[in-house]
Amino acid sequence: MSFNENLKKQCNFKNNRLCIGLDFDNKWFQNDSLDYMQGFIEDVIESTIDLCPVYKINFAFYEKHGYSGYKILEKIPSFINGRAVTIADAKRGDIGNSSKYYAESIFDCLNYDSITVSPYMGYDSLEPFTKYNDKGVFILALTSNPGAENFQKMFFKSDELYKHVIRLANDLNNDNNVGLVVGATNHQYLYEIKKESNLLPWLMPGIGFQGGDLKKSVTIGEESYLSLVNVSRGIIKAGDGSISAIRNETKKYTQKIRENL
Amino acid sequence: MSFNENLKKQCNFKNNRLCIGLDFDNKWFQNDSLDYMQGFIEDVIESTIDLCPVYKINFAFYEKHGYSGYKILEKIPSFINGRAVTIADAKRGDIGNSSKYYAESIFDCLNYDSITVSPYMGYDSLEPFTKYNDKGVFILALTSNPGAENFQKMFFKSDELYKHVIRLANDLNNDNNVGLVVGATNHQYLYEIKKESNLLPWLMPGIGFQGGDLKKSVTIGEESYLSLVNVSRGIIKAGDGSISAIRNETKKYTQKIRENL
Repeated sequence: MSFNENLKKQCNFKNNRLCIGLDFDNKWFQNDSLDYMQGFIEDVIESTIDLCPVYKINFAFYEKHGYSGYKILEKIPSFINGRAVTIADAKRGDIGNSSKYYAESIFDCLNYDSITVSPYMGYDSLEPFTKYNDKGVFILALTSNPGAENFQKMFFKSDELYKHVIRLANDLNNDNNVGLVVGATNHQYLYEIKKESNLLPWLMPGIGFQGGDLKKSVTIGEESYLSLVNVSRGIIKAGDGSISAIRNETKKYTQKIRENL
Repeated sequence: MSFNENLKKQCNFKNNRLCIGLDFDNKWFQNDSLDYMQGFIEDVIESTIDLCPVYKINFAFYEKHGYSGYKILEKIPSFINGRAVTIADAKRGDIGNSSKYYAESIFDCLNYDSITVSPYMGYDSLEPFTKYNDKGVFILALTSNPGAENFQKMFFKSDELYKHVIRLANDLNNDNNVGLVVGATNHQYLYEIKKESNLLPWLMPGIGFQGGDLKKSVTIGEESYLSLVNVSRGIIKAGDGSISAIRNETKKYTQKIRENL
């Protein structure tokens, strides 16, 4: 089964499109050890995995702790152990030879199911990832941050850069394992993206704290293939930050998503 | 002293512009332990550091070994210990909040002097790195790989994407700590890049195996501010791969560079 088929299967099985971003920063663990951090992350996963089909792990939050943080990155996929899809949100991308090693790192060594990659260096920086035909590759298209204005929305001839990126993503999708990162904050661009995106799943950050529109994100992305609604701080910082508050917020988001499916 | 001033000082002190890329892949260490790999890397550094002012460490080659490889990444800067400038060739870049953590990872935790970053996500993905005013930030402009054709050379109005990236790099260079990654394979573009690049140092991969022109790279880059000639495989795979072969090749490149200074 291809990555994109498996992703849809997991999402349909849990009747959800939620992707929880496990972005834990220092505020949680200032006085605690990284072992405590790891244990807490495992508790968050355990208490939400009956509802949540996808977890996104932003590497920045772990790499800031050096190799001890990197060690936690290695443990998360084996803890999840096939019960949900994992996304290594690492935004890698380099010349072919180096991207091949990044792919080995994320897929073979750390055992993530998929990765986010940056397209600036073009096709040979992306291909080594897509060649793993059972693994997923989410290519940055139109991101949720202010700097998306700098280059992504610039016009080449009649089309913006991000559309050219989507076309390359379509071309690379020979094994049904390529997706797009589409910031949910780009409300007015979602129909345009749908026109270009040829049956690619969308990973949509920007819901919650960044103000993205959940209803639009779910419904328009679903018309393309499916859209994963990523919520990080909106869930893991919910209420008093306890496991029960996190589970409650996960339920709320799940409910909102189901209303739009 | 700003990063760019310090870089020039180190280069002038050793009368060199060589940057050795410490890209050791499996072929060296197939049957050896990572401890052996680390020891060998230290021997390479020790035997070349009287000549070489800058070392570039491509993170892909280390991350492929998981957290044990990551541990070596932590050790290299303390081994070099100020005797040369270190570049974390990690090509990071994310929304502001995450880039801030990547900057903490590379600068505070791993103690590298500088980093390579990918500009696709725009200014707020780059700024958290440039805010470390004693650290350097090399922004991908025009890279040495085939995929540079996909987006970097596309025209927005009358100028290619990479020129717009260089202008943003100029704007971010308030603390004289921003540089550019300029593939040495782009012979015919170097004069164009010089016109745009406002006193920024260039990190130039693509010499050696990729066929970049050393003479042009040194002389044109030098007219901008200075150009670092990166050689990875061309040095560390020289001859029989022994330390003495590596030192000999370092001497040869040093000689060629000095002839053009």
